Amino acid sequence: MEKVNLDDAFASFTEQWDPRIAGELNGQAVKVAKVEGEFVWHQHEDADELFLVRNGELRIQLRNQPDIVLQEGEFVIVPRGVEHQPVAETEAEIILFEPSDTSNTGDVEAEQTQTEQKRIE
Amino acid sequence: MEKVNLDDAFASFTEQWDPRIAGELNGQAVKVAKVEGEFVWHQHEDADELFLVRNGELRIQLRNQPDIVLQEGEFVIVPRGVEHQPVAETEAEIILFEPSDTSNTGDVEAEQTQTEQKRIE
Repeated sequence: MEKVNLDDAFASFTEQWDPRIAGELNGQAVKVAKVEGEFVWHQHEDADELFLVRNGELRIQLRNQPDIVLQEGEFVIVPRGVEHQPVAETEAEIILFEPSDTSNTGDVEAEQTQTEQKRIE
Repeated sequence: MEKVNLDDAFASFTEQWDPRIAGELNGQAVKVAKVEGEFVWHQHEDADELFLVRNGELRIQLRNQPDIVLQEGEFVIVPRGVEHQPVAETEAEIILFEPSDTSNTGDVEAEQTQTEQKRIE
């Protein structure tokens, strides 16, 4: 049983839109990611997804409803089946909580799709 | 779909050792709690439990292995079946991730047992 320091976890990589698993429990994963720019529109058919901002600002764009803008210390849960597009004007550090096997681009195959679930070292 | 601001969530109550559900996803809950002093020794037979410190310091005491001391921005996952005792010398604000129906005192019935799962307002 080892603790994880979030600052160290974020400092351990530089790639954007490339989540790293920082911990797993009950079939769910805690992932850390650096994001900047517009991600692809997608949805997760069988997974609710939590976005928590650690540093910066994250905008979650949604179809037919207002954007959700998250600052440091704010989170939102995007329910399964809800199409969303994360956007960050400048680099943001975010924490994700979702089932371990969740694909980052959900139902969409895109340039940003990560086929391998990476872990923090 | 509404965002949750963690500072507001912690400001919405004062009771210690009395977790509030701040969000639910995939059968799991994000809970916020204020803690101070020693909690009861307990374990969760069917639930891994994540402790993330938002403010202050939390010590997780374990049987036959070193304590885990968490500062702000640090988390640990206590696997199911591992007896633990959370301790905070001064008030700490913590975030818990665990199955929604997890009892705060696990297999132990104690004065601190919360029979009702409260939510932030």
